Amino acid sequence: MSNEPVALDHALSTFDALWSPRVITQVNDYDVRVAKVEGEHVWHVHEHTDEFFLVLRGELDIALRDADGERHVTLPRGSVFTVPRGTEHKPSAPDGAAILMFEPTGTLSVGDRHEDVPSHVDVTPGHAL
Amino acid sequence: MSNEPVALDHALSTFDALWSPRVITQVNDYDVRVAKVEGEHVWHVHEHTDEFFLVLRGELDIALRDADGERHVTLPRGSVFTVPRGTEHKPSAPDGAAILMFEPTGTLSVGDRHEDVPSHVDVTPGHAL
Repeated sequence: MSNEPVALDHALSTFDALWSPRVITQVNDYDVRVAKVEGEHVWHVHEHTDEFFLVLRGELDIALRDADGERHVTLPRGSVFTVPRGTEHKPSAPDGAAILMFEPTGTLSVGDRHEDVPSHVDVTPGHAL
Repeated sequence: MSNEPVALDHALSTFDALWSPRVITQVNDYDVRVAKVEGEHVWHVHEHTDEFFLVLRGELDIALRDADGERHVTLPRGSVFTVPRGTEHKPSAPDGAAILMFEPTGTLSVGDRHEDVPSHVDVTPGHAL
């Protein structure tokens, strides 16, 4: 991976696939990934890592199940949220969104446990840009 | 730290200090920080960690010294760059900028080695929002 600045708009223009993250740079043993999303992802959990979301375009909803039951958070463009490790979550974006994520390199898009994965969700640790 | 979404515009509206990062969320043992910057930071190096920059407003310049000599990269709004560990660097923003950073919790704003720190640069591992 060359070490030059990456324009997020350009990175997002290089692919169309939904729910299929691209690695735009690495920070130590973490990836910075961007993804285009629309519709629903799947309930899943990362047992060993938190997962950071920044909404670049559109609006992202994240449903969460934790000790207090089920809730959801809404992230408009320009907002951030960290899903704590061990928390079942399901991102969705009825009207589409583009997001940036931080997570350890190798983290699977569907976590360590997940419901059945429909064909529109890419099971991946992230693709090269 | 409560676990609710954080709007970056709101976070940036809560402080005016320049070169004085605020921690907006944590991801495992990493901080996500935002800062307002204008003018020049100092030459410094993080010996043990990469440092990620995302430009939220304005334009950031980062001067770099590595094995190939000195160069600089320009990051317009909406672009990202990772300074590799061990690379001397000096951020600057003649016209002002707002940036988001991702680095291990505890990482000092002036790194492990740095030139004399002028009064306009805050030596900090990041303040609470």
